[in-house]
Order: sequence, then C-alpha cells, then structure tokens
Amino acid sequence: MSTGVEASRRATAPTSPGRVGDVRRRNLSLILHQLGLSGQTTRARLAADTGLTKASVSSLVADLVSAGLVMEVGLNRAAERGRPGLGVALNTAAAALGLEINVDYMAAGVLNLAGDLQFHQVVEQHNAGKDPEEVLGRLTELAGQALQQAEAAGLTVHAGGLAVPGLVDTASGRVLNAPNIGWRNVDIAEWAASLVPEGILGTAVFNEANSAALAELWYGHGRGMGNYLFISGEVGIGGGIIIDSGLFAGPGGNAGEIGHIVVDPEGPECSCGGSGCLERYAGQDAVFVRAGIEGGNDAERMAALLEALEDGDEQALAAVRRAGHYLGVAASSTFRLLDIDAAVLGGNFATLERWITPAFHASVEEHAPAVLAADDVVVSGLGRQAALMGAAGSRIRTVIEHPHLLLKQH
Amino acid sequence: MSTGVEASRRATAPTSPGRVGDVRRRNLSLILHQLGLSGQTTRARLAADTGLTKASVSSLVADLVSAGLVMEVGLNRAAERGRPGLGVALNTAAAALGLEINVDYMAAGVLNLAGDLQFHQVVEQHNAGKDPEEVLGRLTELAGQALQQAEAAGLTVHAGGLAVPGLVDTASGRVLNAPNIGWRNVDIAEWAASLVPEGILGTAVFNEANSAALAELWYGHGRGMGNYLFISGEVGIGGGIIIDSGLFAGPGGNAGEIGHIVVDPEGPECSCGGSGCLERYAGQDAVFVRAGIEGGNDAERMAALLEALEDGDEQALAAVRRAGHYLGVAASSTFRLLDIDAAVLGGNFATLERWITPAFHASVEEHAPAVLAADDVVVSGLGRQAALMGAAGSRIRTVIEHPHLLLKQH
Repeated sequence: MSTGVEASRRATAPTSPGRVGDVRRRNLSLILHQLGLSGQTTRARLAADTGLTKASVSSLVADLVSAGLVMEVGLNRAAERGRPGLGVALNTAAAALGLEINVDYMAAGVLNLAGDLQFHQVVEQHNAGKDPEEVLGRLTELAGQALQQAEAAGLTVHAGGLAVPGLVDTASGRVLNAPNIGWRNVDIAEWAASLVPEGILGTAVFNEANSAALAELWYGHGRGMGNYLFISGEVGIGGGIIIDSGLFAGPGGNAGEIGHIVVDPEGPECSCGGSGCLERYAGQDAVFVRAGIEGGNDAERMAALLEALEDGDEQALAAVRRAGHYLGVAASSTFRLLDIDAAVLGGNFATLERWITPAFHASVEEHAPAVLAADDVVVSGLGRQAALMGAAGSRIRTVIEHPHLLLKQH
Repeated sequence: MSTGVEASRRATAPTSPGRVGDVRRRNLSLILHQLGLSGQTTRARLAADTGLTKASVSSLVADLVSAGLVMEVGLNRAAERGRPGLGVALNTAAAALGLEINVDYMAAGVLNLAGDLQFHQVVEQHNAGKDPEEVLGRLTELAGQALQQAEAAGLTVHAGGLAVPGLVDTASGRVLNAPNIGWRNVDIAEWAASLVPEGILGTAVFNEANSAALAELWYGHGRGMGNYLFISGEVGIGGGIIIDSGLFAGPGGNAGEIGHIVVDPEGPECSCGGSGCLERYAGQDAVFVRAGIEGGNDAERMAALLEALEDGDEQALAAVRRAGHYLGVAASSTFRLLDIDAAVLGGNFATLERWITPAFHASVEEHAPAVLAADDVVVSGLGRQAALMGAAGSRIRTVIEHPHLLLKQH
C-alpha cells in the first residue's frame, strides 16, 4: 500500500476553511471503501489495512462520523488484544432513494450505505403513452412515502437514483428516448432536483437495464463474475454489459441495447423505428401473443402464461422456447463481438427460467458453440428490486467516492 | 502541467546502476510522446511543453539519443529567438517490423518511429489448410528480406508485430483459433522470439482486424474519429472496435468479431462452428458465388467482379448489394449494442466502396434508423498495409511507452 503510506503524509495537513484538499478527499473515500470491504472494524485495523497513520485515520473517521457516513459501534473486544478498540462501521442510517419507472409498474425503495434495501414498494400501473408529468407526479407521491418511511426509521437520504427503460443523458438529466413508454427528449432535471429535499447530491437518471446489471454485480448473482451480459425481459428487453467488474456504457453512455440487436433482417418493425429487433421476438408481448394469452393486465397474463407452462400447454411451451431461441441468437452475437462468455438473466427471463434457459443454451450452442458452459448463465434473484437497487447503488457509490461533498463546511 | 512539474523535481535524481527509476521512465516516455505530437522541436520548447526543467529535458534527450530513439536535427533557427537551439526529433531510423498472414496473401513491411511505412511487400499465397510451420517458414524469408532492406537503409528494427486472421493470445504468443487458415492453438512464441535478431522487444502476435482498426486510428482515415467500428472484408470478415481513441479488446482480448454476428438465425454453417454468421453472407467467397464468378485465384476473381460491376452486370450488382445489406444488419446491431455511430470500411469493402456502401447505408437506415449520417462511414485508404501497420504500430507504441527498455544499461 505504498500509495496510502505516501498519501498519509499529507492526510492530517490543515486544509483551508471550506475546502477539502485532494489528498484528504481521496483518503476519506479510501476509509469508506475499506469499511465496505471489511465491515465493522477498528481504527487501528483501518490504519493497518489502508497504510494510513492512526492519527490520520482518527481524523478522517471523525469527519465521516460527523457527516453521518460512519458510526461508532461500541467496544470491539474480539478484534484486538489488550485495550479493546472502539469499533467503527459504515453508518447504516445513511441511504439513497431508488426509483423505477417501467412500462407496467413503478417502484421506490431506500438503500442504505451497506447495500441493504430498507423499503421497497411496487405499484402496478400502465405508464405507456401517459403524459410524463402525470407519471412523474405519481412517482413523486410514491417517493414521498418512501422518504417518510425512511425518516421515521431514522435514515438520512443523501441522494436519489431513477431508472427508466430507455436512453438517458445522466449528465443533463434527460430521458432521450424511451419508446416503450413513449417518452422522447423529456427533461426531468428540475423534477429530479427537488425530489429529495435534504439530499444535496440530487437525483440522477439512469437506464433501467444498466442499473439492474450493476445491481447484480454489487448485490446479486453477478458478484464474483467480472464480465457478463445482463439481459432483462420486460415489455422491452434491456441489456447491460459488465466488463472488468464495471459497466461498459459506451462512448455515449447508452451501450447494452441488446433488445435492438437484429435477429431477423426481414423481421417486423419495432417501436425503436428499426426492424427485426430481438424485442419483437422475445419481449413479453411477443411471447403472450405467440402463447395465445389474451386479456388482463401484464401481471395477470404472466400468471396465465406460467400456469399454461406448468400444465405443459404446447403453444405456451413453443412460444417461450422461441423467445429463448432468439435470445440465444442475440446473446451469441454479443458474446462474439465483446469476447465475453457469461450471462445473467433478469426480469421475466428469471421468472421463466425453467422453460427459457434450455432453449437459450441450445441456441447459443448452435450459433456460438463452445462459448458458454452450463454455469456461465445465472438467473437474477433480485426480481423487480434490481433496477432501483442499481440506481440507488450508483448514488451510494457517488457518496463513497466523494464523501467530502457531505462534510459540514466550516 | 502540474504533474510534469512535480515529476521533474526527481527527473534528474541519480538512479541506481542498471535500473531506471519510475519517474524517469515516465519522463522518457513523455518526451517521446511530445516529439510525436510536435514533430521537430527544441529542448527549450520540449521543456515548456512538458513542464519539465530544461536540465531534465537535456538529460532525458541525451539518454534517448544514445538509445537511438531521438535524433539531433541541426540548428533550428525558426523556432527560437536569440541563440538558435539544436533541434531534436523522433529518430526515423528506429523502426518496427510489421507482418501479416492472411488467407490468400502474406505481407511484410517496416514502420519507423514517426509512423512512416518504409518497405512493404505483399506475396499472393494460399495459406488456408497449410501446415503452420511451412507458412511461418515462408514468412521468415519475407521478414528476412524486409530486415535486410531496413539494415541497408540504416534502420534499426527494435521489435516486430504479426497480424493473423483469428483469435490470439498476445501475452503467450499463441494463435488460439484462426478458422479461415485452419490454425488452432498454434504456439508461435519460439518462432517470434528469434525473428528480429537485434530486436530485444521480440515479436508479438495480434488479431489482424484489431491491428487494422488501430492503423486507421493512428495513420488512416480514423484519425480524429474517437469511436467507430472497423469492418474489413477478406475471405473472412474482421472487425475492430475503437472506443475513446483506443482499441476495445474485451476482457479476453478478442472483441470485435463482427464476422460472427448472427445475421440470419436459420442461416448456413460457418467455419467458426456456428451458423448464420455475417461471414457467410458478406465474406468474399459468398459474394463471388452469388455473383457467379468462378475460377482463378482470389485476386483474379476480385478483378472479374470489379469488371462485372463496372459493366453493370445485374448478378454481380445484386451479390454486392446483398453483402452490403447484411453488413448493415450486423453493423446496426453493433451500433445499438455499443452506442457508437461511425464505421470505417476496409479490405475488400474499401475496394467495393461504390457498390457496397449505398446498400450498407440503406440497411442501417432500415434496422437502426437515425444512427448514421452520410459522413459517419469512411473507407480505408490503407489497403493491404493496414493490418501490418497496426501490428508494427503497436510495437512502436511499446517503444514509446517503455523507452527505458532500450537504454544501454551501465
């Protein structure tokens, strides 16, 4: 840890009022990172693990405690010999708000600094074609309830993250194009700025599938898998590319659109304006139609599909197999193009796991043989929590990377 | 340039015999980088441009001159007021060997530190199915001729780079799988080590299309384009992904295999073991067959195809249009997946530009509308020099990044 040792020389140097020096910023973040890795520990162990001096660690921890990001956790007798040290841990009262707008539901939840989802509420609701202002109004209510619950539980919400099913510009707070809900170039920056009153970091907007891909990496079955394609089935099909344990967002920030890989050049038109896209073959509407399932809302239709599959209904089985086949076609192209060889299936693909994964595996074996082993495909266990956990988790990451933003200026 | 200034404090510090310190290594590389950007300049200007002290620059330049990487270029009266400074520039006598094995030809050339290709020789030769040892034997002869020419011209070849049409493991010097020449897990490390006798950096193996994509970026029409898909038509179809002005090689180092994107899930088997791959639709053999062109070697068949196209032969025109259509399908999927919106077409696609690009544009407009503007697609001007220039250029990059490896130890 020579960097840490070198950095520690300046860690306790005085900083000008109202401004935290670069090295101290870095060391504040280093302490939070280490606490995320080690869990509850002592200042002495933090010093040993980071290469910082004990005096530096004490000073940094004091700042982080006063910012509400680290908490004292009582005597830690087990960890040290001699005089027991006062334990420290990430403050689980520090949290971020996670929100999701999807085609047929919206959801809110609060994720704390340790990555635990504290509240989670899903509201079934058709958002396609609705006025964005109306949808955001309802989401504000749902977010308000989550913030109230958080406050009642003693949590401090520092930031928010919103996941939407479309292309976004996170920097400017705009939804560029979300065809499945009919949004085009919707500026939500003003709405986002006022959402979390005490959250000085504001609310950022993310692509839903990219957020879900990161949630798998940080909190789900993607932990320990450094490189994979995340594919999520909803009304649309979202994708996220994880490379070297990080999101590959592409130069424009919107990579991973596997739903619009062309799986049949002569195929039907897609909501994106293109044609032959995977979404038209493996999106849930395409599967419902093929399976002959009509009527009811999406949740009811999914329940009917599952029942038909359980009953061995040939039409339903063929429809899901066909979706798995085309999913395998798009995944094969992606594996070859990006040189990755693992996948995490989420959303409805997780719900349909038993029936869809055999067809998926067979298709990949046909189109890109020897790329996938059986255990290279895992299924999400996060369900409808994934996208909002990823969006909130990205904001938790911001807090951990830039804790100085939350320090009391004096 | 605060980093440079800070670094300069230690740039002239003594280093232990036989070992160049980290800071000095970095500054040696910094000088070469700057010379690459500025061309001929003076020590005083180098100091101003890098933030290093004049004393540091003099010491660093002296080392680089003695390593043969920088040359004195006489009085530089124009650049300075007062006493004219002695000019310095990248030593154009320092060079790397570039080699390519492709399906129907092999080639060799020598690229100097300034990126000028000094010699270039292409030999038409069918390499498919030949014993690797036989192919490498012939390449050794061709390389020997290039090295002799280089020596006669006073060049010093410090390293070699070999481009092959397949998956490679550059670190271990192995060709993992090159189906179009029939190589599978061929270890060429020993052969490569002995190829450039005085080149202490050895010879490294690269994927042909990735090398060509980099050549476009460094020396070709990709200059100034930060993000693009390079697609090269040969017997196979190679691809290279340039993101943020660098190669996106993927976690395994072999990303960019656009030739094996599935463009028709019910399509024919491919040499890769998969089926429906782009290569079966837009590779040159597929085009020749569709165009009804038979007999002769590949060069003769391409000449016949071009003649038929010039004559307005409907079968030939339809065959090339079809290739452009499927090329557009695969590119559309890639643009959506990676969030990039530009392409450089190389190899035969450059030769067939007039006929293939309209079909390519139309197909992308159909499958991924509004992604590409007309000037987002450019055609390579490097021809059969591209792959070996990229392979040699990668080695030139190694020299520029790690010039201390060439310093005389004392």
